[in-house]
Amino acid sequence: MKPVFHPDIDDIAAADVFAALADPIRLGILVALADVPEVDKARCNSFTEFASPSLLSYHFAKLREAGITRFRVEGTSRYLSIRREDLDRRFPGLLDSVLETARRDPNLPRLSGPLTVS
Amino acid sequence: MKPVFHPDIDDIAAADVFAALADPIRLGILVALADVPEVDKARCNSFTEFASPSLLSYHFAKLREAGITRFRVEGTSRYLSIRREDLDRRFPGLLDSVLETARRDPNLPRLSGPLTVS
Repeated sequence: MKPVFHPDIDDIAAADVFAALADPIRLGILVALADVPEVDKARCNSFTEFASPSLLSYHFAKLREAGITRFRVEGTSRYLSIRREDLDRRFPGLLDSVLETARRDPNLPRLSGPLTVS
Repeated sequence: MKPVFHPDIDDIAAADVFAALADPIRLGILVALADVPEVDKARCNSFTEFASPSLLSYHFAKLREAGITRFRVEGTSRYLSIRREDLDRRFPGLLDSVLETARRDPNLPRLSGPLTVS
């Protein structure tokens, strides 16, 4: 599998970040990731109840290409995590504000059970 | 002229707000509006250096339909303002965080002179 692109956080444009946030499924993914204590990471297949695998791949790519999440492979598992330190450095306060905003929206998708983190 | 639609702020979905922010011209308009002391309003024709009139109309509509700005007519002038109180109530902290984020993006359009507010 070839490496996937992760932008340098200093290259991220504000409008691109907001474009990546402009979807309820992507906001639902972020909130679920952020609510995992400490690790902020999860197996990509934790979100299959949100959308089909191909649509999830699309949403994961939008988040990753905007610099919001990081993707990595460990063994046979694929993981997703929020680039919290990078985001907090590039746009201080934005991530927490986005998460707080998303949590106030009752119509976002929520996982029915805990995330698979390992 | 028929009245234009302004959504009740409680009806706004988080993803719709982010969609409205997903454009450098719209972020540039917001920053310029926010930087006007006290009034947060400006004539719609203050932004003609950002885009053509028809494109500006499109951007104004996106911001208005997302609940971010308010449009009104006074005499022969058309005005634009940020719905700060509404936004701060619906999504506390989000507007300031968005403005701070936008101000950190050096590639957003900036007005060459002061806004026309009256």
